[in-house]
Amino acid sequence: MKKKSAYDKLLDLSKEIQLYDMMRGLLDWDQETMMPPAAAYIRADAFATCATHIHKLTTGVKFTHLLSQLIDLESGQVLSSDMDAAQKAVLRELRRDHLRAIKLPPAFVKNFAHASSAGYHAWVAARKEKKFSLFSKELDKIVSLCRKKADLLGYKDHPYDALLDLYEPELTVAQLTPLLTRLEAALTPLVKEWTVKTACNTDRIKGHFPAEKQLLIGKDILQKMGLDPNAFRLDTAVHPFCSGLHPLDTRLTTRTAPQDIMSNIGSVMHEGGHGLYNAGRPEKEFGSPLCESVSLGIDESQSRWWERFIGYSLPFWEYYYPLLQKFFPQPFETLPLQDYYRTINRVEPTLIRVESDEMTYNLHIILRYNIERKLIEGSLKVKDLPEMWNSEMERLLGIRPPSDDLGCLQDIHWSSGGFGYFPTYTLGNLYAAQFIEAFSRQRPNWEEEVKKGDLSHIREWQKENIHRWGRMYTPSELIQRATGSPLSEKPFIAYLNKKYGSFS
Amino acid sequence: MKKKSAYDKLLDLSKEIQLYDMMRGLLDWDQETMMPPAAAYIRADAFATCATHIHKLTTGVKFTHLLSQLIDLESGQVLSSDMDAAQKAVLRELRRDHLRAIKLPPAFVKNFAHASSAGYHAWVAARKEKKFSLFSKELDKIVSLCRKKADLLGYKDHPYDALLDLYEPELTVAQLTPLLTRLEAALTPLVKEWTVKTACNTDRIKGHFPAEKQLLIGKDILQKMGLDPNAFRLDTAVHPFCSGLHPLDTRLTTRTAPQDIMSNIGSVMHEGGHGLYNAGRPEKEFGSPLCESVSLGIDESQSRWWERFIGYSLPFWEYYYPLLQKFFPQPFETLPLQDYYRTINRVEPTLIRVESDEMTYNLHIILRYNIERKLIEGSLKVKDLPEMWNSEMERLLGIRPPSDDLGCLQDIHWSSGGFGYFPTYTLGNLYAAQFIEAFSRQRPNWEEEVKKGDLSHIREWQKENIHRWGRMYTPSELIQRATGSPLSEKPFIAYLNKKYGSFS
Repeated sequence: MKKKSAYDKLLDLSKEIQLYDMMRGLLDWDQETMMPPAAAYIRADAFATCATHIHKLTTGVKFTHLLSQLIDLESGQVLSSDMDAAQKAVLRELRRDHLRAIKLPPAFVKNFAHASSAGYHAWVAARKEKKFSLFSKELDKIVSLCRKKADLLGYKDHPYDALLDLYEPELTVAQLTPLLTRLEAALTPLVKEWTVKTACNTDRIKGHFPAEKQLLIGKDILQKMGLDPNAFRLDTAVHPFCSGLHPLDTRLTTRTAPQDIMSNIGSVMHEGGHGLYNAGRPEKEFGSPLCESVSLGIDESQSRWWERFIGYSLPFWEYYYPLLQKFFPQPFETLPLQDYYRTINRVEPTLIRVESDEMTYNLHIILRYNIERKLIEGSLKVKDLPEMWNSEMERLLGIRPPSDDLGCLQDIHWSSGGFGYFPTYTLGNLYAAQFIEAFSRQRPNWEEEVKKGDLSHIREWQKENIHRWGRMYTPSELIQRATGSPLSEKPFIAYLNKKYGSFS
Repeated sequence: MKKKSAYDKLLDLSKEIQLYDMMRGLLDWDQETMMPPAAAYIRADAFATCATHIHKLTTGVKFTHLLSQLIDLESGQVLSSDMDAAQKAVLRELRRDHLRAIKLPPAFVKNFAHASSAGYHAWVAARKEKKFSLFSKELDKIVSLCRKKADLLGYKDHPYDALLDLYEPELTVAQLTPLLTRLEAALTPLVKEWTVKTACNTDRIKGHFPAEKQLLIGKDILQKMGLDPNAFRLDTAVHPFCSGLHPLDTRLTTRTAPQDIMSNIGSVMHEGGHGLYNAGRPEKEFGSPLCESVSLGIDESQSRWWERFIGYSLPFWEYYYPLLQKFFPQPFETLPLQDYYRTINRVEPTLIRVESDEMTYNLHIILRYNIERKLIEGSLKVKDLPEMWNSEMERLLGIRPPSDDLGCLQDIHWSSGGFGYFPTYTLGNLYAAQFIEAFSRQRPNWEEEVKKGDLSHIREWQKENIHRWGRMYTPSELIQRATGSPLSEKPFIAYLNKKYGSFS
């Protein structure tokens, strides 16, 4: 038997780590969908055991030794001369993960986990009582720890850059702030205009939609999107998610609202978009960064593409509305397609992010980004957070939350220390619009194909330009390669203008 | 902080190992119930990774060091003077597991796993083609490896003792052979008599039973048995099983036959019996042998107790038959309880073990025990197996399989190297009858309580005398403590005589 190269040994170890991450993923999926509730406390022990082991393997002597034979850990220079481009990318990304892991000492990670757990419970209680004050002490601790985390991870210009990099590699405040400022400026007049022009009675799309039938529609749409029925499943969960255990094992979840069909269809197509990204990565590279998602923003672009740019589009409903009418004659049989389409796309400022339309949605994110950036840089104190939230809501959307549960307590993210995460939601929308612009140049007729129920060209373009690359390129390289331009807000604004222009 | 004792450190490590075993259990449960089929090949990698890690931890320096500080690994003498009886039992059992693990070198374990996997696939193919010859080469290899395994594990009198001990600690051929010989002698005339006397038309209990309704009945019965709805779930699987991930996380499965209601009810009560044993072990001892099943035979006694001694009993059906009649007026509304009871309890020699009644069942096991003991001691060659099987079937049950799929190829056990497992099925029946005899002495009125739908006293006796002890006592100590006598076939024979005597 030929002796294994250091590279092959490193990849074996990386695959072992990935298998433990798969187990962690299964523990998580199971907890949210299947687990008997009484098992919650022992499940927490299983998570901790799994996470500790993954950290040990990623930072251990064996990993470090193999990696440092192949790449200079200091400079990032690849040492082995016979590596091809893909292998160089693998080493670059493994080094990236390794350096991040060793920068956070186990004691800090443990401390952070405890604070997150305490934060989560305080947040649940505060939200129930509608009082931010019940959460502020714990949030203060979490913010301190996140500032500490930024210091440990290191940054050049802004501490928030270190946190942003966890979710969107290499993106910085210096790039993001101007982008979102331009986006805000473009969105504000659009929201004002279309809130008035799209106002309509939403009761006409309400009905009685049994959960079981909704799940059948969900599975049908997922298969039409191109998910292999042998390699995915769909269940229900309180907060829908996609768990990609392996390209051949995609676990999707959705939620069904008894009166609102779009809650489920939106969820299904959103998670289905994440699912296609998972399924489209090269399974033979499982265990290597080449089989991993490149960033949360790119991942979100795939889910928003399907959810919003297809699932709320006229071509899709020209195809699917007759099927929906057959499924639910009440209330759709007598409601014209155009009315349905207009109703699901109405623009309306709302207090709650997850209920918002695609135009106001990004203003919710901009609000959060400004707040969390200031918290991390220290220019905003936790105690002043609710006032800033409320006044910003008024400035951006013209409405003011009557209580904190409808304001700054609505999202889970901060309670578990997820600072830096929110911007990826808007990045997803911007990436998606820019990808679609490039796709449209290459396949100008795609909307005609969607009208006929053929969604295959979208999926194929996504796989060819995004999915199959895993972490081969950085997010900024990927968007440049796929669209010919760096990330911009313009395609998204152009998309909104075109779509809503058709309503006048 | 007080320094942790060696004992506490050992238990922490034992809990860590148990958590990995829980993950392995979840991977397994998920594979059989939920997993998209395409994920099968990567799931095999996850199992191997998990198993290797468990083996490493159990045989590693840390475990060995801690354990050998507390107990002499050679003699089994407890070294620490301040250990109570429970701690001594924990050390005894941890030593037992550790010694077994180190006796099997990793290369042997790997080799065995490969042979099992090849054996399984050959068995599937041979069964499909109904030709034992397609399986004999692989089985030959497996038998050789099992003989090697017995040598590695060590034994005093008979190589089969080493394998038996894997499933039923401390039981030997010297005890088992005479027990089963007496059992066979007692069963043979009973089977002949009651095959004739219970003959009846089984079509009268056939109907159309939708799977969904059957699962509702299953959940209802499980809750009546005393399983906490917050701590278990019930799903369907091709081969029903119970996966006890933790006392607060019991995963039960069943199968539903569209025409035969007892297939599901039998499965549900069988797995529910295993489930109660899992749920009845002390959760605060999770990670220690005190929270583990003491043997397959004792575990099987709990499942058979519920499945056969309750689920096929007249008192249970006096209570539950009116409910079944309401659920399925067709065909039960017009069928008297006595006819139903008699039909489900008819005795009839059959070729297939899993379809057999409680009287002939044990003859199927005796046949397998005799064959596998001879294979392991070397007095039977694999090539002569089918002939021995067929002639023994004729001798014991008066019927001869027309083809190997209905004979020696029907069970999966040997294909994966599970020699020593089969006897625990009959042990389960014998233990159960003996437990019930003791329970009846203490609570003579229990059948009256069952008639009223009160099953709580059975569960409480089981918990008090069996479940809560985990591996505190060996199986032979446990039966002696709970019933006042060593294991005997007599209570089982007395039970059959009493039950079937009522049919004359």
